[in-house]
Amino acid sequence: MRSESFAPPAIPAFDDEAASAAQARQDALAKPPGSLGRLEDLAVAIAGLTGKRRPTVSSPTVVVAAADHGVVDRGVSAYPPDVTRAMLGAFAREEAAVSAIADVVGADVVVVDAGVDGDPVGSPEGAASVVDERVGRGTADLAADPAMTRPDAVAALEAGVRTARTKLADADLVALGEMGIGNTTAAAAVTAAVTGADPARVTGSGTGVGAEGRARKVAVVERALGRADLAAPGARDPVAVLRHVGGYELGLLAGVALGCAADRTPVVVDGVVSGAAALLADALAGAVRPYLLPSHAGAEPGHAIQLGALDLDPLFDHDLRLGEGSGAALAIATYRAACATHDRMATLADLTAADRTTDG
Amino acid sequence: MRSESFAPPAIPAFDDEAASAAQARQDALAKPPGSLGRLEDLAVAIAGLTGKRRPTVSSPTVVVAAADHGVVDRGVSAYPPDVTRAMLGAFAREEAAVSAIADVVGADVVVVDAGVDGDPVGSPEGAASVVDERVGRGTADLAADPAMTRPDAVAALEAGVRTARTKLADADLVALGEMGIGNTTAAAAVTAAVTGADPARVTGSGTGVGAEGRARKVAVVERALGRADLAAPGARDPVAVLRHVGGYELGLLAGVALGCAADRTPVVVDGVVSGAAALLADALAGAVRPYLLPSHAGAEPGHAIQLGALDLDPLFDHDLRLGEGSGAALAIATYRAACATHDRMATLADLTAADRTTDG
Repeated sequence: MRSESFAPPAIPAFDDEAASAAQARQDALAKPPGSLGRLEDLAVAIAGLTGKRRPTVSSPTVVVAAADHGVVDRGVSAYPPDVTRAMLGAFAREEAAVSAIADVVGADVVVVDAGVDGDPVGSPEGAASVVDERVGRGTADLAADPAMTRPDAVAALEAGVRTARTKLADADLVALGEMGIGNTTAAAAVTAAVTGADPARVTGSGTGVGAEGRARKVAVVERALGRADLAAPGARDPVAVLRHVGGYELGLLAGVALGCAADRTPVVVDGVVSGAAALLADALAGAVRPYLLPSHAGAEPGHAIQLGALDLDPLFDHDLRLGEGSGAALAIATYRAACATHDRMATLADLTAADRTTDG
Repeated sequence: MRSESFAPPAIPAFDDEAASAAQARQDALAKPPGSLGRLEDLAVAIAGLTGKRRPTVSSPTVVVAAADHGVVDRGVSAYPPDVTRAMLGAFAREEAAVSAIADVVGADVVVVDAGVDGDPVGSPEGAASVVDERVGRGTADLAADPAMTRPDAVAALEAGVRTARTKLADADLVALGEMGIGNTTAAAAVTAAVTGADPARVTGSGTGVGAEGRARKVAVVERALGRADLAAPGARDPVAVLRHVGGYELGLLAGVALGCAADRTPVVVDGVVSGAAALLADALAGAVRPYLLPSHAGAEPGHAIQLGALDLDPLFDHDLRLGEGSGAALAIATYRAACATHDRMATLADLTAADRTTDG
């Protein structure tokens, strides 16, 4: 039985006491005050989110959600739709960019099929299992019709919350990743609908469609917003936005963000697609906001608008536009470094004591 | 017998063929061309430096060189000079910021005593060994006299080359780190001498001395450059610069950079102190330039001038001003990610083949 309405899980407030204690520890560590710059701020923020004075990032996980998009028939991608399915296999066999980056930063990867076209991919022989949270077999063409039914939109969000609370239950930091040919068009439409930004400002070249392809994408987004009456600012029901112009993986990742936040697990946002999911999560439950952490400044133009709307200051700009969670996965190293220095460094008092011992 | 002159080791040229092959591989990988942005450029650069079409970073190492500075008597630091010795112990016991960050990125740390004041520190009980390359017991006050003799300057450079070719021989990427109360003053003087920049533009607050302390530092740097006749642009013998206004750890790190480059090992530059060492290395042997890789944009004002002079575009700006190699250590994750994606990702051809197999 699929529901018409989505009830976000309860999200705990930022723990000011833990954050203050963490700040006091930072100030006592054996270094000039403030000399670890942003790493200090990140450690203090994670202390407040997790409620731990000395938080660690020892089980970071990248969740990669994949789904197909009916809008691909309108020439919005440089790649054919069956690449989504092929890449799902590459994730399971650990041959994708995100597999390599996750390995470098010591993160696990959880691959979720949120609704790839055709039969279930299953798990390729000898490869990691793909989590089956298939809401459908690809969405409908969002330029012509709602991308999905309202119950399916709710089901995608619920699948995300469930994924967070089962497959990601042991993770202490979750990075959002995705794959879906056509999904930068859905992400642009969601971004325009949620922020009220002009479609031309939030729509980019995605996989590399060139100026003509980009113009097609802008026209598709404008048409979708007009059809669904989402262009006018005002009350924008996020479930309606997801239903009309979203994608299964966008809904699933929004649900993951909410489910992680409910369990005090910080969530690292990647590029323009996971950014659109983060906007949906934030519109569904504003309490998720502090749990959303930045990674990179992506190459897609809508990304800066998303980061501005979510008040996220990116950690680096490597001109990435791959998706998969590649930028968020790389950022895990920064969060690990922030917490590891916070937890492991000697205090000035330790240092003085050790020095006294050494000198007899 | 200490020598009056330093002969840099021969440094191999960038391997254009390996770089071209690496670029061809990048273009064949299963991703939109260019979508890994800067990571692609870094992988191709490391291919050209190492001469390997599919380079890996599997044994990265942070080298932390420590020494003392006679100039501390002039109130240029917020900390007393014995902190250098105390921190050397913290590095050996793996309780410093760089210890924690190196652990996160999978790097080893090699700690070198290049000339800490007093008796040799040795290796604290149960801790990692400190490499003894002591050139002296701290430098002289560079505002009044040459910081060291010319033979000692040559000895510091040679100690660095030796460290690279023995203790760092198995490293495939080396990050430069340092510790030395007073060493941002020496770094500012070296930067002004090598680049011709005004002392006021390259001298910062270091550990946090405030405006008055900074003014003292600028005056010290101006006096040192005037005394040594290093203020006028023109022929600046880098050994003379090191002798007059440098430090043992600066010379040692310059030697490390040269020795690593001679063995085709790329070198990641950290903040303003390792940046000054990189400037010296570059002035001694211009062939080292491509082997010098960026990490962060540091908070010290001289750092941007160094990066500009060395044509290094930083990977991130976390407002770090700790030193120890903390920023360079964190950047190792980015270099590892660049090489790991380059080496491990499936090509589009692999993906098509796998897809065909799966579909029967």
